[in-house]
Amino acid sequence: MSERTDASISALPLPAEEDVPEGVQRLWARSREVFGFVPNVFVAQAYNPEQFQAWWAYFNLLVNKPGHLSNAERELLAVVVSGVNRCTYCAVSHGAALRHHSGDPVTSDLVAVNWRQADLPEREAALAAYAEKLTLTPAEVTPEDLDPLRGVGLDDHAILEAIQVIGMFNMTNRIATAISMVPNVEYHSQAR
Amino acid sequence: MSERTDASISALPLPAEEDVPEGVQRLWARSREVFGFVPNVFVAQAYNPEQFQAWWAYFNLLVNKPGHLSNAERELLAVVVSGVNRCTYCAVSHGAALRHHSGDPVTSDLVAVNWRQADLPEREAALAAYAEKLTLTPAEVTPEDLDPLRGVGLDDHAILEAIQVIGMFNMTNRIATAISMVPNVEYHSQAR
Amino acid sequence: MSERTDASISALPLPAEEDVPEGVQRLWARSREVFGFVPNVFVAQAYNPEQFQAWWAYFNLLVNKPGHLSNAERELLAVVVSGVNRCTYCAVSHGAALRHHSGDPVTSDLVAVNWRQADLPEREAALAAYAEKLTLTPAEVTPEDLDPLRGVGLDDHAILEAIQVIGMFNMTNRIATAISMVPNVEYHSQAR
Amino acid sequence: MSERTDASISALPLPAEEDVPEGVQRLWARSREVFGFVPNVFVAQAYNPEQFQAWWAYFNLLVNKPGHLSNAERELLAVVVSGVNRCTYCAVSHGAALRHHSGDPVTSDLVAVNWRQADLPEREAALAAYAEKLTLTPAEVTPEDLDPLRGVGLDDHAILEAIQVIGMFNMTNRIATAISMVPNVEYHSQAR
Amino acid sequence: MSERTDASISALPLPAEEDVPEGVQRLWARSREVFGFVPNVFVAQAYNPEQFQAWWAYFNLLVNKPGHLSNAERELLAVVVSGVNRCTYCAVSHGAALRHHSGDPVTSDLVAVNWRQADLPEREAALAAYAEKLTLTPAEVTPEDLDPLRGVGLDDHAILEAIQVIGMFNMTNRIATAISMVPNVEYHSQAR
Amino acid sequence: MSERTDASISALPLPAEEDVPEGVQRLWARSREVFGFVPNVFVAQAYNPEQFQAWWAYFNLLVNKPGHLSNAERELLAVVVSGVNRCTYCAVSHGAALRHHSGDPVTSDLVAVNWRQADLPEREAALAAYAEKLTLTPAEVTPEDLDPLRGVGLDDHAILEAIQVIGMFNMTNRIATAISMVPNVEYHSQAR
Repeated sequence: MSERTDASISALPLPAEEDVPEGVQRLWARSREVFGFVPNVFVAQAYNPEQFQAWWAYFNLLVNKPGHLSNAERELLAVVVSGVNRCTYCAVSHGAALRHHSGDPVTSDLVAVNWRQADLPEREAALAAYAEKLTLTPAEVTPEDLDPLRGVGLDDHAILEAIQVIGMFNMTNRIATAISMVPNVEYHSQAR
Repeated sequence: MSERTDASISALPLPAEEDVPEGVQRLWARSREVFGFVPNVFVAQAYNPEQFQAWWAYFNLLVNKPGHLSNAERELLAVVVSGVNRCTYCAVSHGAALRHHSGDPVTSDLVAVNWRQADLPEREAALAAYAEKLTLTPAEVTPEDLDPLRGVGLDDHAILEAIQVIGMFNMTNRIATAISMVPNVEYHSQAR
Repeated sequence: MSERTDASISALPLPAEEDVPEGVQRLWARSREVFGFVPNVFVAQAYNPEQFQAWWAYFNLLVNKPGHLSNAERELLAVVVSGVNRCTYCAVSHGAALRHHSGDPVTSDLVAVNWRQADLPEREAALAAYAEKLTLTPAEVTPEDLDPLRGVGLDDHAILEAIQVIGMFNMTNRIATAISMVPNVEYHSQAR
Repeated sequence: MSERTDASISALPLPAEEDVPEGVQRLWARSREVFGFVPNVFVAQAYNPEQFQAWWAYFNLLVNKPGHLSNAERELLAVVVSGVNRCTYCAVSHGAALRHHSGDPVTSDLVAVNWRQADLPEREAALAAYAEKLTLTPAEVTPEDLDPLRGVGLDDHAILEAIQVIGMFNMTNRIATAISMVPNVEYHSQAR
Repeated sequence: MSERTDASISALPLPAEEDVPEGVQRLWARSREVFGFVPNVFVAQAYNPEQFQAWWAYFNLLVNKPGHLSNAERELLAVVVSGVNRCTYCAVSHGAALRHHSGDPVTSDLVAVNWRQADLPEREAALAAYAEKLTLTPAEVTPEDLDPLRGVGLDDHAILEAIQVIGMFNMTNRIATAISMVPNVEYHSQAR
Repeated sequence: MSERTDASISALPLPAEEDVPEGVQRLWARSREVFGFVPNVFVAQAYNPEQFQAWWAYFNLLVNKPGHLSNAERELLAVVVSGVNRCTYCAVSHGAALRHHSGDPVTSDLVAVNWRQADLPEREAALAAYAEKLTLTPAEVTPEDLDPLRGVGLDDHAILEAIQVIGMFNMTNRIATAISMVPNVEYHSQAR
């Protein structure tokens, strides 16, 4: 199996296109069509291809597909979590996604630094506050912390989804940072 | 759709067996056969059933199936991460799994509190040290932190797997804590 | 004076039985009768025997003898403090003591990880919350933090005792960790 | 039994002189002779008189009596620990003791704020560095942290004593802060 | 004196143009000419006009005028400090300045999240590492931490300037956050 | 240009008197007259003399000249900030200034360790609490944190001044610590 290394993508070796499973090859091809590039996460994590495909099936359903929260709300959670964890790959790529889904690049930038200083509507503020607490001090979280989410109109399905999205970015932030994954340059200017 | 609440399982409502998809029903049935009980995570998270199934497909592949690390090594990572995040569900249930896979209940107990004081062999110690750092201070991790893992003989596939397992428990710890998931009592005494 | 080292007990040298004062010899003998073993703390700390005897006189009075709090309450404080300080010796040995005095091994395990997720009665919850705060952020504690203890019915003598027990385990956790004291294996399975 | 409260001493009630055991009465009398005042700790903690006497017997032996470390070295540990724990009673009263035993009020003041900026001799610096680490991050301490203490000439008995003194002030700092104990005004100007 | 409030600028009242000293009026006028807008900091802080002018004289000399470090290097320090302090005003406005002076918007974005993941040249990396440490843990900094700065060729004048710039943004971050100062929207897109 | 080094003043070189600008020479001369010595900050920072003069003009106006807060109030902020940042130069020199302006050496000592245990009047307590929060967790501060300051009678000009003084000592603490600046011995005994 041929491997290559490319520090502009990841600190671990990268799989060659001919070696990844057909499903991964299709994902790469579709990415080139839709985005004009293959997100580095699709290359770097495909080094363990089966695990990558299982992760992507879960991530894509949880974050991208229609759910109990809007796409903009899920990307808000992504940006808040990635910001406090200081993960460049996720902060930059989901910063682009938040700008795209919210149509508000100014607020997207502010929330990436500190949601408290972004003048968010109360529903977004409640989501952001919960995301920060569950990320930074998971041991201190209790069911009472869910009350403000209910107070802004989230039902229990939406709450469980928010929790899972927050959990997901606590996973992906650590994976991306651990292998020093570099965001594709295209993300920096998307949707500005 | 009928719902129930059971504070001895989760702070969120629980789905009724007749309402969950067939795949979830099969998983519950198989659990009763194999374990004698349905792990509470299979009930609590099935409240959003599609997302639960996608998560379980990924988790089961990454943590339970044959991989680049042994099952005991993956459970060691689970216990270290769950300990520093102070997640009772995961610490108790994966404490049982570590006792089972390692056959060493004494070391399993010690490592749940503090791996530094558990006299671990160097390979396990390197995994534990990395798991703690990536969990507690993700922003400070760099590729140099992977060197001790290579130094104890882990190849890049095993390293990527370790990173994903550490990431996974940083996700599940937060989900379990957020909904105040209670470990099934059976876990406490298993494999002692 | 003959000394030995035994990494399965402590990182510092251990005193020989013939060299310790008669009072220590009696304590060791009585331990063998009552417990079937000599707790490693009685050996490791006896390296400075006078100080050990003065410590033990205080510890035994404060933690074990009849006081203003029940033994189970004092062991709850011990387990909470030792858990947040991540001291294996104290977490394991006082985990056994808490199981013994409370008769509830399941709750004992939960509280060792995170009292918030252990569904404690309000009196125990108030003690646990105070123990965690005084342990982790002593500089932020004020007399107002005593109000919840009064609210669950503790009088001032019991409050002073709780404070001293919390203080004591902040001392012993640091001593045990500093010399890498290993809990006797018997503790792991006691009272399960 | 008559009780009084005096916020200039402690947030808990204080015992009347006629109610405390004879041993405590003698200690108070001797303090008036030797110091010209009764240290507030002797009054505030005597509210639970038996426990107070057991604590004092241990504290007095460990901190004040001839030991393996000089009195100035033990007071240095006291001041470093009390400073990082931000305990006013202990910082002020043991600041006075350090000035007295070291004869160096300037260095005593500096070390109370930050030992790194106090230009300490290497033996004192090693003790101060260890005291800070064991106080702030006990979970991260290992036996390797004792090497610098050995490197500056401390033997194992002195190391065990240093550890116990550090542990002691982690106890007393928490007790003094918890009950908001106020240092006697005399300490502020002693030995300047 | 007429005052107004404008939550899109600051949480404190704003001075009217006719009430600020002539020097401030000139600064506002010049800003409109040069930038096309008055930076909100020039309005918000001018509420105490004398202090504002003294601050601006110092800030402008230290950060903007020719110095021992390049403007890009000083803006790198600004962005690193403002990122770890999570100050939106400074992160956004000095993010624009760093893009302008470095001509590298991609690296500017990366460094705003986490300099470790920005593949910086060693001189910039040394400055960024020092800025993060002096910002987050000032009590742990010693003169030895200056060695890496000397190792990448900084002389003592440049080192003192770097230290002052780091200090300056630790001041301005706190002021901007305290009054909830909002960055002018123009900064978000400048120099992309 | 002649330089000297003097570890009893700073870790960086010091400028010779004949090399500093006339304004600095005058400041040194006036200091000798008024204080009997030249504060080490006036020597150490004058190594970059223009920047030093701009800093001093701002500092002197903000901290020493008549303002919206009393001198004692500003020195209280200085001591609280310098204490939590553990900066010896500032803690010792502004400890002297607080004793001088407040005429209360006992409270000055207490507040240097922990304002919570200093029995402050409510106005001073509100200032101290805000100074500690803005210093330690700037990212968590919001405009709501200003309410207690308004509640004790501070107007918006005084609040902005307090914020700037807190910011200033977060700057000077970091500069003094970075270059290991040593307080002049005279400060230790002044105004006791």
